Amino acid sequence: MEEDKAMVIFQPSGRRGEIPKGINLVEASRLLGVDIEALCGEKKKCGKCKVRIEEGYFEKYNIETSISHVSPWQEEEGDFISKEEREKGFRLGCAAEVQGNVLVFVPEESRAGKQVVSKAARDINIVNNPAVCCYTVEVKKPQFEEPTADFERICEALEREYSLKNLRIDIQCLRQLPKALRDGNWKLTVSVWNNEEIIRARPGEEKDCYGLAIDIGTTTVAAYMCNLRTMEVIDTVSMMNPQCKYGEDVMARITYHMTTSDGLERMGNDIMEGLNNLVDEAIENTYPPKEKVKSKDKQSEDVEFVEVPEEGKTYLRLTREDIEDVTIGGNTAMHHILLKLDPQYVSLAPFPPVIHHSLDVRARDLGLNINPSAKIFILPNEAGFVGADNVGVLIAEEPYKSDEYQLIIDIGTNGELVLGNKYKLISSSCATGPALEGAQLSFGMRAAPGAIERIKIDPETHEVDYKVIGREAWRSFSQPEEMKAKGICGSGILDVLAELYMAGVVDKSGSFSETQKSNRYRVNPNSNQGEFVLAWAEESSINRDIVITLKDLRQIELGKGALYTGCKLMMRRMGLEKLDKVKIAGAFGTHVDREKALIMGLFPDCPVDKIVAVGNAAGDGCRAALLDKKKRDEANWVARHVEYIELTVEEDFEKQFMQAMQIPHMKDEFTHLEGIVPEEVLHQKVKKRRKKTAN
Amino acid sequence: MEEDKAMVIFQPSGRRGEIPKGINLVEASRLLGVDIEALCGEKKKCGKCKVRIEEGYFEKYNIETSISHVSPWQEEEGDFISKEEREKGFRLGCAAEVQGNVLVFVPEESRAGKQVVSKAARDINIVNNPAVCCYTVEVKKPQFEEPTADFERICEALEREYSLKNLRIDIQCLRQLPKALRDGNWKLTVSVWNNEEIIRARPGEEKDCYGLAIDIGTTTVAAYMCNLRTMEVIDTVSMMNPQCKYGEDVMARITYHMTTSDGLERMGNDIMEGLNNLVDEAIENTYPPKEKVKSKDKQSEDVEFVEVPEEGKTYLRLTREDIEDVTIGGNTAMHHILLKLDPQYVSLAPFPPVIHHSLDVRARDLGLNINPSAKIFILPNEAGFVGADNVGVLIAEEPYKSDEYQLIIDIGTNGELVLGNKYKLISSSCATGPALEGAQLSFGMRAAPGAIERIKIDPETHEVDYKVIGREAWRSFSQPEEMKAKGICGSGILDVLAELYMAGVVDKSGSFSETQKSNRYRVNPNSNQGEFVLAWAEESSINRDIVITLKDLRQIELGKGALYTGCKLMMRRMGLEKLDKVKIAGAFGTHVDREKALIMGLFPDCPVDKIVAVGNAAGDGCRAALLDKKKRDEANWVARHVEYIELTVEEDFEKQFMQAMQIPHMKDEFTHLEGIVPEEVLHQKVKKRRKKTAN
Repeated sequence: MEEDKAMVIFQPSGRRGEIPKGINLVEASRLLGVDIEALCGEKKKCGKCKVRIEEGYFEKYNIETSISHVSPWQEEEGDFISKEEREKGFRLGCAAEVQGNVLVFVPEESRAGKQVVSKAARDINIVNNPAVCCYTVEVKKPQFEEPTADFERICEALEREYSLKNLRIDIQCLRQLPKALRDGNWKLTVSVWNNEEIIRARPGEEKDCYGLAIDIGTTTVAAYMCNLRTMEVIDTVSMMNPQCKYGEDVMARITYHMTTSDGLERMGNDIMEGLNNLVDEAIENTYPPKEKVKSKDKQSEDVEFVEVPEEGKTYLRLTREDIEDVTIGGNTAMHHILLKLDPQYVSLAPFPPVIHHSLDVRARDLGLNINPSAKIFILPNEAGFVGADNVGVLIAEEPYKSDEYQLIIDIGTNGELVLGNKYKLISSSCATGPALEGAQLSFGMRAAPGAIERIKIDPETHEVDYKVIGREAWRSFSQPEEMKAKGICGSGILDVLAELYMAGVVDKSGSFSETQKSNRYRVNPNSNQGEFVLAWAEESSINRDIVITLKDLRQIELGKGALYTGCKLMMRRMGLEKLDKVKIAGAFGTHVDREKALIMGLFPDCPVDKIVAVGNAAGDGCRAALLDKKKRDEANWVARHVEYIELTVEEDFEKQFMQAMQIPHMKDEFTHLEGIVPEEVLHQKVKKRRKKTAN
Repeated sequence: MEEDKAMVIFQPSGRRGEIPKGINLVEASRLLGVDIEALCGEKKKCGKCKVRIEEGYFEKYNIETSISHVSPWQEEEGDFISKEEREKGFRLGCAAEVQGNVLVFVPEESRAGKQVVSKAARDINIVNNPAVCCYTVEVKKPQFEEPTADFERICEALEREYSLKNLRIDIQCLRQLPKALRDGNWKLTVSVWNNEEIIRARPGEEKDCYGLAIDIGTTTVAAYMCNLRTMEVIDTVSMMNPQCKYGEDVMARITYHMTTSDGLERMGNDIMEGLNNLVDEAIENTYPPKEKVKSKDKQSEDVEFVEVPEEGKTYLRLTREDIEDVTIGGNTAMHHILLKLDPQYVSLAPFPPVIHHSLDVRARDLGLNINPSAKIFILPNEAGFVGADNVGVLIAEEPYKSDEYQLIIDIGTNGELVLGNKYKLISSSCATGPALEGAQLSFGMRAAPGAIERIKIDPETHEVDYKVIGREAWRSFSQPEEMKAKGICGSGILDVLAELYMAGVVDKSGSFSETQKSNRYRVNPNSNQGEFVLAWAEESSINRDIVITLKDLRQIELGKGALYTGCKLMMRRMGLEKLDKVKIAGAFGTHVDREKALIMGLFPDCPVDKIVAVGNAAGDGCRAALLDKKKRDEANWVARHVEYIELTVEEDFEKQFMQAMQIPHMKDEFTHLEGIVPEEVLHQKVKKRRKKTAN
């Protein structure tokens, strides 16, 4: 690196680059396509550009003392940054100048382009049978003739009225019991966990209790707050996984644990702090914004909820104690780190987890600030690389109840695959890497405004038509300067390889074709590497051409090859020639163009109408387990019922993988798609392709 | 109080009195009969007289700032008192002079007369069936073909080899599992609680685990450390209940809770801190004293235990983690305060407890520093005034397995009574007050050296013969100055009333007889109250006559009246005329002279050979529950099976009580004792009595 430049990395986007020293962080963010909010024009007047200088571990550059790698604190920053925030490393992006390598975290509220979170709750069919239920009983006052203790008094009523037998009570809840019973004049509502244990006692009659279903992804964490009685999803909140600063993928985090004495402790604390922030956010959202509340007494503690008629909304005004149940799913590494279980063996062959079975852990034992007597249900793990998140997918999709052979693909930073039907289910994982999600490509970025999400390339002119998030009109219907493209996100990446191939820019091997003469193709003089321009600088908000490089193509091909090989080898194991259904979970599934996916060979052949996107099925599974306790048993059953297959030890794995990286992977062009892709589409494709090859 | 005097109270003895200001605490202790150790003769040279100035709540005088009520710190004290100790209020008794009302705690090691603890473990018949057991398994290393998780791997082995099914594991233990499994090269020992949950994992083969049975008395706390496999009692440790500073009896403690916002929190923390000290003491006792260990490496961590041949003893060198099970019994108030359950309703009619049923509380949830995954078994309560301690007595004595009608009397600060056989059991409590234990009498003291424990009064001369703890010879065989009497303890008090009555000094009504002309009887000019001299000043170590006053007699009579009334009314309820057996639990039972008890009417008539002392049966019950988990079910069953009867609401309770305070309580002198007390004894008594009456 040149002496007058420094490496700057922005989290959570992961965007990085060498930036001339002396440039402030807002400018640096623009150069790297991150866009920090700066309403006042970098005059230290609006305070919108707050960022946090991270002290975290940073793999390549090991910035341990990054805080000294920015210019000194300026007085004006104090107008917006409290003493506590300052101690945590907060600065104004327009005041702090780059002086050395630095890792910067841009909080959600400081991001100019808010991330598009596609983890909203989907309608799935769930039976209402929650693990935590409320029961109201009224009992007689103790008399000399009948001086039974408070606990036994209500237990008798609970058995008589609700057939609840042999109940236990958590010690913390027991402490509230005498007061609750007397405050309610011998009428009270208890929350019972699993028909086994009383975890809460409230005076008088209460009907509702609430729970959270949390899906901890390597990158994103989403939580659904639900009313356990009505099953209504009250709110969906999400955040970046705060562990991202320790490394982008599962292996990096495990490595961090293995190389740092308190790594596991730190990462575990960070995710728990994150979850607590999520809980706070969900709780805060149940209170009306201050400006909506007219008189001060409406905020008083006596009022249970506040109706704001102009919003047509009722604010429930919940407290942390009102969250009485939580279910959590995540991949095995996230599971282990959350519970502070040593994750190192998950990364070492043969990758055994510490535990498969689900766990019921008291909230206070994990430090989750909800009702302290509540128990957190941790979904079970299938295997080292197919974790509780995949179990969530399974209990949401229930392939074990189906006659059809289903292939369920869940692509996160890692790919998890399940294949089978009600007679047999096998699972495996494939190292798709982050490329398919848009990470670690030259212009890869998250699904946020300015990200290219759809691409078409004219096979004759090689003109690129594309659409960016945040703008309805495609490039061909816009002025160049209207596009404000910034990078390319996961769904765009899934288009680009198929389009480049069909346009003849890329050949079978996945390299830039030697015969093509596209005016958008060039060799970058710095890297001496081929690249194809998707958007010219004038169309971008970062004043640079947005390109896809040969290295990027290789990344994408490695990813799609891994996925295809995984699917193919699993089918072979099952003795299957074709699939009845392909279900694609996660954001990936929502965005993938099914035809293009088949053309580029992302997964084995299947009629296009049998390919369905099932959204955040992992999160749905957590929600199902929250609202129906039978799903918890089902989760444990399926976690041990699915046979995990380690595909990398198959004899011809390498050969299959090499083959799968090519495009198309079949011998005869397109013939494999007959009967799969609608004839009209196929016809057009073949025509285009033939025209190109003829040229 | 006179201006030049101050109230000084010594804990844990509870001895109190007005002391001239300017006198040091060692002298003050002598004046009050406490005796602090002072080898150097108060020259600040030996450091033996360390005491702690308490900041605690003090009912009558409310000494909140007692620390300023002694003279300033002297430099020489620093030779014996560390900075930390000084901050806690430690002083040398010979250096600190009384300047105002002060509450002083005399630590065990500073007490000249070490307390005689009679809570050693008794041999009782216990089946070996502990709740916590060790199991060793050896498993195969994970393979690609069999990459099962660590937990399921050992569960399979535990099911195969020991038929343990559906085991859970505590989260803290799960965190140790991967390392333990690999450190032991795939062989490990797990501790399983109740055949349900794994609470510990140790590498390799281990055979032993340990537990504590704890009996929390209002005044004294005793703990038996046992090997759970061999049932051996490794050690018995005891201490004063640190809550004594908040009040001597249950009611005073509950009042403290009701009048102080953080009273419950404080008392709960104090007892837990005390229990942790007890655990530490028990643990430390498993290490050889430093001077016994010759080479330093014997103390190294690798050595599991150390044999010290000259002591014929093996030191186990246990750690806190080695304590894997605990059972705790105590009266309902002690139970509630320990668990921080609101005890106020226990003191308000109809006295309902918060809970009857036993509790299994995680050690870490209570803050007990043993194995954090261990569960503490809290014995169940029968009623507000008959608590878990009485359940301990019952499961130790098992009256519910007997054909005989048994009356079980457990006299602590409160009296707890159980009557019945295998067909029916009833229980009650009686407010015996502290007098029967020697507390709150003019010269009452604990069973420690110098305490008068046996008394005989010659009916003709009224000469008093007595024996003190710590000296074999009775007064009649000693020189006066050899006796060094200090006060009178519980067992002496049980003698005094019967002896004074038989000698004619006290009449039927329990007052000093108007006809007697004893030269030991006098009216105290200060109090204008009658008193009888038991020991003259020259026989005492406190240079004062040791007397029993009319007020003292009334206290004793109230106590014995309450006890007798309780027993009598229970017999009436059961329709019983006579008892088959009387069992007396606690130190009281060990010390009481059964004949004198019958004469003074302590409890209803029963052949003297059917009266047995059963020692610390409450503690034995805790130990039985520790070593045999079936005893835990039995405890829950019996706690609800015994019918609690509130005797004070009986119509003629007052009348009965008034009658019971008299001596003897029966119409015809001694005739009620015929066939109960051996004829010879009876004959002698009648003779003496008749002689007296004739005079």
